[in-house]
Amino acid sequence: MSLIVQKYGGTSVGSAERIRAVADRVAQTVRAGNQVVVVLSAMAGETDSLVSLARELGGDAPDPREYDALVSTGEQKSAALLTMALQRIGQPAQSLSGSQVGLRTDASHARARILAVDAEPLTELLGSGTVAVVTGFQGVGPSGDVTTLGRGGSDTTAVAIAAAIRADACEIYTDVDGVFTADPRVVPNARKLARVAYEEMLEMASLGAKVLQIRSVKFAMNYSVPLHVRSSFHDGEGTWVVREEDVMERLVVSGVTFNAKEAKIRVRGVKDQPGIAARIFTPLSEAEIVVDMILQNYAQDGTTDVTFTVPVGDYPRALKIAQEVGSEIGAADVEGDEAIAKVSVVGLGMKDHAGVASRMFRVLADEGVNIHLIATSEIKISVVIDERHTGEAVRALHEAFVDSGAKEPVEES
Amino acid sequence: MSLIVQKYGGTSVGSAERIRAVADRVAQTVRAGNQVVVVLSAMAGETDSLVSLARELGGDAPDPREYDALVSTGEQKSAALLTMALQRIGQPAQSLSGSQVGLRTDASHARARILAVDAEPLTELLGSGTVAVVTGFQGVGPSGDVTTLGRGGSDTTAVAIAAAIRADACEIYTDVDGVFTADPRVVPNARKLARVAYEEMLEMASLGAKVLQIRSVKFAMNYSVPLHVRSSFHDGEGTWVVREEDVMERLVVSGVTFNAKEAKIRVRGVKDQPGIAARIFTPLSEAEIVVDMILQNYAQDGTTDVTFTVPVGDYPRALKIAQEVGSEIGAADVEGDEAIAKVSVVGLGMKDHAGVASRMFRVLADEGVNIHLIATSEIKISVVIDERHTGEAVRALHEAFVDSGAKEPVEES
Repeated sequence: MSLIVQKYGGTSVGSAERIRAVADRVAQTVRAGNQVVVVLSAMAGETDSLVSLARELGGDAPDPREYDALVSTGEQKSAALLTMALQRIGQPAQSLSGSQVGLRTDASHARARILAVDAEPLTELLGSGTVAVVTGFQGVGPSGDVTTLGRGGSDTTAVAIAAAIRADACEIYTDVDGVFTADPRVVPNARKLARVAYEEMLEMASLGAKVLQIRSVKFAMNYSVPLHVRSSFHDGEGTWVVREEDVMERLVVSGVTFNAKEAKIRVRGVKDQPGIAARIFTPLSEAEIVVDMILQNYAQDGTTDVTFTVPVGDYPRALKIAQEVGSEIGAADVEGDEAIAKVSVVGLGMKDHAGVASRMFRVLADEGVNIHLIATSEIKISVVIDERHTGEAVRALHEAFVDSGAKEPVEES
Repeated sequence: MSLIVQKYGGTSVGSAERIRAVADRVAQTVRAGNQVVVVLSAMAGETDSLVSLARELGGDAPDPREYDALVSTGEQKSAALLTMALQRIGQPAQSLSGSQVGLRTDASHARARILAVDAEPLTELLGSGTVAVVTGFQGVGPSGDVTTLGRGGSDTTAVAIAAAIRADACEIYTDVDGVFTADPRVVPNARKLARVAYEEMLEMASLGAKVLQIRSVKFAMNYSVPLHVRSSFHDGEGTWVVREEDVMERLVVSGVTFNAKEAKIRVRGVKDQPGIAARIFTPLSEAEIVVDMILQNYAQDGTTDVTFTVPVGDYPRALKIAQEVGSEIGAADVEGDEAIAKVSVVGLGMKDHAGVASRMFRVLADEGVNIHLIATSEIKISVVIDERHTGEAVRALHEAFVDSGAKEPVEES
């Protein structure tokens, strides 16, 4: 018998018919001899409709406490409905709100952090053969108010609960079959990964793969919760996200990702002196603009160029700030470019393969793709290129690193 | 400064625009120097939509605990939205769920009884100049589950809270101007009562006047909470429902009501013997059919007729049961009639006026209206007549008792 947490998103519970399909799958999992906790999002469209009412009555910045009280009703609704559907097919079930499941958070409304989850109410319910249906995305704050966890909160709820009850698996149901080596819409040869390490998944999630929310992967990694990303449309195995040592076949590159939603800004010809970087990045940070990649070049004449990337949504504000700072520090020029993309290769095997970077640059050079910026971490290499070359770059890198099947056999420990 | 509880129904908060209008009225009440608690129903249509989803997924008898968890989201939504609207116009406000306001109930889901209300969280909020916006219709059961109070629950919530915080008034906002001496659609001369006693209001509510829910009037009477039934469309005074001693002008008859939603059943020619009534009414009671009026006639030949009324919705089942019992006990005949109406006169002054009944019968006889059944209480006389005579009977009684202005002056105590 296994202890399983299943998380279903808004599309999976988007209608009465789909809720019934989820009930069937949950009941089937119980019949197969498992204990099951279900974590639900609100029905598709529900949260949007609540948010639009909030804006209509509360303006652009409705009170966060009331906002949470409002939007949390969406998951309460879907949880009660799935519970009824389960009971109707003879499967004992009970819904639990964030407060009833003892999911305690801090007081940061709309982006609360989970402090603790009580295992007791859940294990008691499960012990009696009852399915626990938990509202995703919400908890209870220090003063007893409902709090919500912000974007991707239901994934995080599922992982937190799985950690608290020491579940054997946390299944995340999605509309894709699992985690792929690249976006299949761009790379027809992309294939589903059977297993991927938390660290790889984290890099892939940060780099644009939208299957899992970064926060939930971090949580799963910290508590070693095995995640199983799988399709809600069929029973096939999806992708397991597990500890590095549980990934049997360690690929040099597990995935090739891209993100076209960044823009590049370059502050050129600044006389090199201490504190230049601080002068540029302090006002950006104060404006709550997240800077991703940073590169500083030194020219022969003693001047320096600082180049960095920001989310494309923050680009106009960031460019304005950079121009102001640029004139203060006597920069020759400040220029920006929105038509860029970040392309990355991610893989645990990379740690031991110094040649990956040089091979990556050669592959791109062979395709005639110019590289603007480079950033590396232990298990990833990212390059910024012209956006128009994204498709060919991703396909070429996938062919070179994934299709070729470059592997590093792992010793059984 | 007064302490006021205001209750708004589903129509009053049926759209963003109407919620804003409620916010304006609440803010105005605060500016006039009052402390205000608002109790809200769900937005019109919301509860129906939730109930229909419950039936779709939970069948005809969805689990009561889950049903309550589901339908209670309607008031959570309207409460958060009104709170946002208040804050937006600069009026500090905070929403409170049944659990947050400490409205504790028994465990009877979907028809829970209120056990207690904590005054503390409310008085603390009010003391800081904040409007408390409370979800109507719901509380928290002994095990921490959400419970709902059943039909008219929001009125009862408002009265219970008014009692707990010793409010100066509990204002019930409706789409009518107050409590009338008769239904103005039937009696053009009907006039709004300035004051009416709890006991009278209770009889009127039981007899078909739909302005207030019976349970909330009982609650108000038990705790001497002054109710003010008034229009949500304008600022004019409505009707105060108060203690008998606070009704200054005691009318012999305060109102004439009618209810056409009853049916009559007559079990004829039963040999009179002990236990006949029990034989008839026990199976009706077991079938949870509420019998209203009962009349037993004795004929010269030692046989008896038993006549009674039931809600028209239960009529087919009740008739079937009566026919079965009739044949078991050897009744000559069992007959039914759906085309009846109950017409009543209600008034505190009646206690001291023995002549009201005989005058009522004379008025109806003069109109050629035949009386099938009569029932009396201390402050009301009800008769069952043919439904087709309802209008003329109500108008004639109103003219005789109300338009004539029969009064009993009350001594100042």
